[in-house]
Amino acid sequence: MNNFNFYSPTYFVFGKERENEAGKYVKRFGGSRVLIHYGGGSVIKSGLLDRVKASLASENIYFTELGGVMPNPRSGLVYKGIDICKKEKIDFVLAVGGGSTIDSSKAIALGSLYEGDFWDFYEGKPVEKALAVATILTISAAGSEGSGGSVITHENGMLKRACGGDAMRPVFSILNPELTCTLPNYQTASGATDMMAHVMERYFTNTKDVEITDRLCEGILLTIIKEAPIALADPTNYESRANLMWAGMVAHNDICGVGRDQDWSSHQMEHELSAYYDVAHGAGLAVMFPAWMKHVMHHNVLRFAQFAVRVWGCEMDFEKPENTALQGIAKFEQFLISIGMPVRFAELNAKGEDIPKLVKTLGLGSRTLGSFVKLTENDVTEIYKLAV
Amino acid sequence: MNNFNFYSPTYFVFGKERENEAGKYVKRFGGSRVLIHYGGGSVIKSGLLDRVKASLASENIYFTELGGVMPNPRSGLVYKGIDICKKEKIDFVLAVGGGSTIDSSKAIALGSLYEGDFWDFYEGKPVEKALAVATILTISAAGSEGSGGSVITHENGMLKRACGGDAMRPVFSILNPELTCTLPNYQTASGATDMMAHVMERYFTNTKDVEITDRLCEGILLTIIKEAPIALADPTNYESRANLMWAGMVAHNDICGVGRDQDWSSHQMEHELSAYYDVAHGAGLAVMFPAWMKHVMHHNVLRFAQFAVRVWGCEMDFEKPENTALQGIAKFEQFLISIGMPVRFAELNAKGEDIPKLVKTLGLGSRTLGSFVKLTENDVTEIYKLAV
Repeated sequence: MNNFNFYSPTYFVFGKERENEAGKYVKRFGGSRVLIHYGGGSVIKSGLLDRVKASLASENIYFTELGGVMPNPRSGLVYKGIDICKKEKIDFVLAVGGGSTIDSSKAIALGSLYEGDFWDFYEGKPVEKALAVATILTISAAGSEGSGGSVITHENGMLKRACGGDAMRPVFSILNPELTCTLPNYQTASGATDMMAHVMERYFTNTKDVEITDRLCEGILLTIIKEAPIALADPTNYESRANLMWAGMVAHNDICGVGRDQDWSSHQMEHELSAYYDVAHGAGLAVMFPAWMKHVMHHNVLRFAQFAVRVWGCEMDFEKPENTALQGIAKFEQFLISIGMPVRFAELNAKGEDIPKLVKTLGLGSRTLGSFVKLTENDVTEIYKLAV
Repeated sequence: MNNFNFYSPTYFVFGKERENEAGKYVKRFGGSRVLIHYGGGSVIKSGLLDRVKASLASENIYFTELGGVMPNPRSGLVYKGIDICKKEKIDFVLAVGGGSTIDSSKAIALGSLYEGDFWDFYEGKPVEKALAVATILTISAAGSEGSGGSVITHENGMLKRACGGDAMRPVFSILNPELTCTLPNYQTASGATDMMAHVMERYFTNTKDVEITDRLCEGILLTIIKEAPIALADPTNYESRANLMWAGMVAHNDICGVGRDQDWSSHQMEHELSAYYDVAHGAGLAVMFPAWMKHVMHHNVLRFAQFAVRVWGCEMDFEKPENTALQGIAKFEQFLISIGMPVRFAELNAKGEDIPKLVKTLGLGSRTLGSFVKLTENDVTEIYKLAV
């Protein structure tokens, strides 16, 4: 096991109607002038935004608002939010929405305490301070409600880049599973795929003897595999939504990733897809992850066999473990199809002939991607081809 | 799933030689005048205490010290520690040791900011503030390094009582598995049993549909079942020690207990045993937990069957699930014996004729104990008898 630090200080407020406590928690965590940041119409139409405002008002907290976050959130709105925060002396950013809204809020919180261009942090500048951020989550997927990470797409060149730091961890996150009961099935399934990917980026590692994190990873995957089909068949099933919502947090606050090298190459390959074709992140991952698995499986057949046996209930083939490994990948792909996810380029309207362009934008050059197998540009090209 | 709050803000610093960073983290978390609190000789003999002092000195942090914590820590030393803290204007308590030392440190931190008797909090007064506490852990067991709880025995009547609150959560905890490599096997096994008990107090619940926490619980148990025998056979096996150390934290920071009713009756029945006979807490739990299981199994046979199948690898008997349930309990008891734990009163030098006294000290009267099955005084008597 590698040495590690683990820090997840977010105060999680989970359950029915908990968004009505937003004001109480903003106050407890020191907010007095709040920017409420959100996306589109559903937060307004459902009445959620009004309930949140009423909760802040009941605590006499000043607030202003900025809507309009799009999936794969863009730099333009971040600049606008930073501008508001600086002019209005905002001290607290409250994200009401999903991963895109939360990531956009984190970027605003970061840029508001910085004289330069916030994009510097997405190009590698270390994060030191940010305004307090809190979240009211409306989709189980990104895990941004419990992580210190943020992914933003810069409109200048459509570069999708990630940045992270403890200062960007939400001070509190309100998770009410009821809010996810109205999601379209495609979004529920994309969210479930995103969570599974967060676990698997950590699961496929070269670090030996990390049984505790292996078992936690497997437990989260088993939960998603059980609960996602229930939520799709019965969208207002509270219990299933609740399990998925908490699984999404645990999948990404790094409790299932500590002590081991992590990979993250599938995420980076997917970022190019979603930046080019503006597909749902989870859908892009459903296309990229099985392709990555097929390409790297022979690096450690027994780890893929463990995945197959423990997560997918396959029988171990002790004579030919690679059969078990392949069966696990096939079961994963069948699961993705069963929940309505795409598994090939064409289903995303992505094109095989764009592959050289995708590879070029990744900008690897002589560097490599990932850690389980260090992927060269040739490997990445092969993986994209497997996804066509 | 029940509504819940989850808050685990401790900064965990895990791995080899990390105790040498103690000074850096005390400083980061605002400590300037430190009480180092510890137990007996091993912390001194091993050189650990000197390394910690050197680390504090290198950051020019003032410190004083108080040793002498015993297993099942007593109120007397707590009063002494509070006295030192008040006189010396201590602002930070650094526990160097195991659960007893950490619990004693939390009690000192609590009492140092209170005018009255610290015992008030162990009799139910809500915890609001305490000095900052941090830990350098030397045994994987209690999980106190990541929890807000503390258990102290009052010498006046040998009452063993628990108290808890977010203010008592350690600000940081340093977990170096190397420090546990010199533990006697009996302590390693008692620690492993304690961890398993922390999980099982949460696992046996009447709350339905908490698959995510079920799976996390099972993952932690599977890890302990794999790793404890390795550590016993090969005490300096770092990887096994590391898995156990992190499992002990995860078992008790409540990530595997959220969203569900928890039981804790076995712990309370054990507290009477260890207060009377001064046995290791884990050893007492090894005696009480299987007895409790045998008594309550019929309340929910399928939950015990799930435990048997998922944790102990039993085959499900679909015609007679109670056979599977019984087999799981038997495998658990066999495991405890295999790691050198006692499973009956006599092995603890406890006496069947003391049972009425134990039951009386529990002080149930017309109240009940636990939540999975609400135990009356008669139930408790029966369970103690099953343990004889």
